Amino acid sequence: VNLVLLEPSEVFQHSGVELSGPRAAHLIDVLRVVPGQTVRVGVIDGPVGVGTVRVVADKRVVVDCAFESGSAPRPGVDLLLALPRPKVMRRMWAQLSALGVSRIILTNAEKVERPYFDTHFLQPECYRPLLLEGLQQARDTALPTVTIHRRFKVLVEDDLGGLSDAGLRLVADPSGTRGLSDVVRSRPGDSTPTRVLLAIGPEGGWNSFELALLDAHGFERVSMGPRILRTDTACLALLALVHDALTPSRG
Amino acid sequence: VNLVLLEPSEVFQHSGVELSGPRAAHLIDVLRVVPGQTVRVGVIDGPVGVGTVRVVADKRVVVDCAFESGSAPRPGVDLLLALPRPKVMRRMWAQLSALGVSRIILTNAEKVERPYFDTHFLQPECYRPLLLEGLQQARDTALPTVTIHRRFKVLVEDDLGGLSDAGLRLVADPSGTRGLSDVVRSRPGDSTPTRVLLAIGPEGGWNSFELALLDAHGFERVSMGPRILRTDTACLALLALVHDALTPSRG
Repeated sequence: VNLVLLEPSEVFQHSGVELSGPRAAHLIDVLRVVPGQTVRVGVIDGPVGVGTVRVVADKRVVVDCAFESGSAPRPGVDLLLALPRPKVMRRMWAQLSALGVSRIILTNAEKVERPYFDTHFLQPECYRPLLLEGLQQARDTALPTVTIHRRFKVLVEDDLGGLSDAGLRLVADPSGTRGLSDVVRSRPGDSTPTRVLLAIGPEGGWNSFELALLDAHGFERVSMGPRILRTDTACLALLALVHDALTPSRG
Repeated sequence: VNLVLLEPSEVFQHSGVELSGPRAAHLIDVLRVVPGQTVRVGVIDGPVGVGTVRVVADKRVVVDCAFESGSAPRPGVDLLLALPRPKVMRRMWAQLSALGVSRIILTNAEKVERPYFDTHFLQPECYRPLLLEGLQQARDTALPTVTIHRRFKVLVEDDLGGLSDAGLRLVADPSGTRGLSDVVRSRPGDSTPTRVLLAIGPEGGWNSFELALLDAHGFERVSMGPRILRTDTACLALLALVHDALTPSRG
C-alpha cells in the first residue's frame, strides 16, 4: 500500500481519522508506524494529502490529515470488456484500477458463457475492495465506475454514448491493420485525443455481428500484432499502450 | 492453446508425430479434433507449420506435420528482472513468454529476499512448461533463455555483455524523466534500435548503488509516470510498450 484510502464520510468535518480493521493492521504490522510519522493519504474520488500519525493503539491508528486542493484527474481510458471467466476477472480488478481506468463497462458477447454473470466477483462487496487495493498500490483516488450489461446490442446502440464521452473508440481485434499507439498518435488533422474508449473481446474473440456493430458505432480496429494473448494479458498490455499514447511526448 | 509445440527430437526425421499426455488430451478433449482436421504446430526454437490429424485414438493423437522454412525471429526484448517473490514469479512465466522475451535474466538485489532463490519455481522442470504454455498461447516457438544470478555486481560488470547484445539498455525507475516509448522512438541521430534490454527492479525498487551501477553500464532511466505498479503489472506494461515502440509505424 503506497497510499491509505479513506471514505469521504470518514473525513467529513474531521481532519483526524480513526482507522481500525485492515488499514490499521497494515499500518501497524507492515509499515510499523509510530506517532509523528507521516503517511500518504487520499479520499476516494477526492484529493490526496499527508497524514500524520497521532495515536497507535491496539488495532487502531489515529491520523491527522491535510489534503491538497482539488481531486486527481480521472484516467483517460474507459474500458468496454467482454466478461472474462470468474477466475480471470477476480485477478483483473486490482490490476485495472492500478493501471488506471475511469469506467469499466462489462458486457455479454456470444463467446461469454452465461454462468460468468452469476459469480459473486461481480458484486460490489467483492470487487470494490479489490479496486481500492489497486488504487492504494498506484497512489490514485479515482475509483473506476463499474456497470454490467447483459445485452450487447442494447449497450452499444442505446447506452454507450451516455456511459463514455471518449473522443476515440478502439476495438482490439486480429483483423486490425494498425497498432493502437499508431492510431492514437496519428489522428488525421487533429491533435491527440484526451480520452479513449477501448473495447476488448472475450477469449474466443468478438463474432462478426459484434464487430460490425462496433464498426457502425465508431470503433476503429487495432491489432496487437501476430501474438495471441490471454484476455487479462491483452487488457493490461493495451491499457499500458493507451496511457502511454495519451501522454504528451517530452522528447 | 493456439499452437501445438513439439520438441525438436519429436520431429527429427519424421513428419508424423505421435502425441500423448497433456497435448493429446488437449487436442481430444478441448479442441475435439477428428482425422483430417488441421492444427497449427511449431517446433521449439524452430519453424511453425500445419499439422494434419491422421489418427485419434485413446489418449493419443498422430499428426502429420509440414513446416515452413526458417524459424520465427527471436523477440526483440531481453529482460533483466530482480527476482520477485515466488507466487508472483510463478504467475509471470507464461505471461512473459506470451508477450515475448528473448532472454530472462533473473538477479539478486538488495530488496530481493534470499529465500526467493530457493523456490522450486526457479527449477527448469517447473518453469519450462509454463514458458511453453505462454508460447502455445501466443503462437510463438522462441523459448526464452533463462539464467539466474545471485551476485548483481558480477552480473552487471562481467556477464551482461555476453548475455545480451541489445543496442539499447533501459531501467525502469521513478527517477526517470522520460517515458519508455519516448526514449525508444527518439534516439538521437539514429534509427529505432532493434533490440532492447529492459531492467525491472524489485517491489521496493533498486537501491542507489544498484541504480548507479546500471547507470555506469549504459542503462537509461525511464519512468512509468506517477502510478506505482506491482512488479508483475509493471513488467507486462513495460514489455508491451517496448514491443510497440520497436514495431515500425504504419501510419
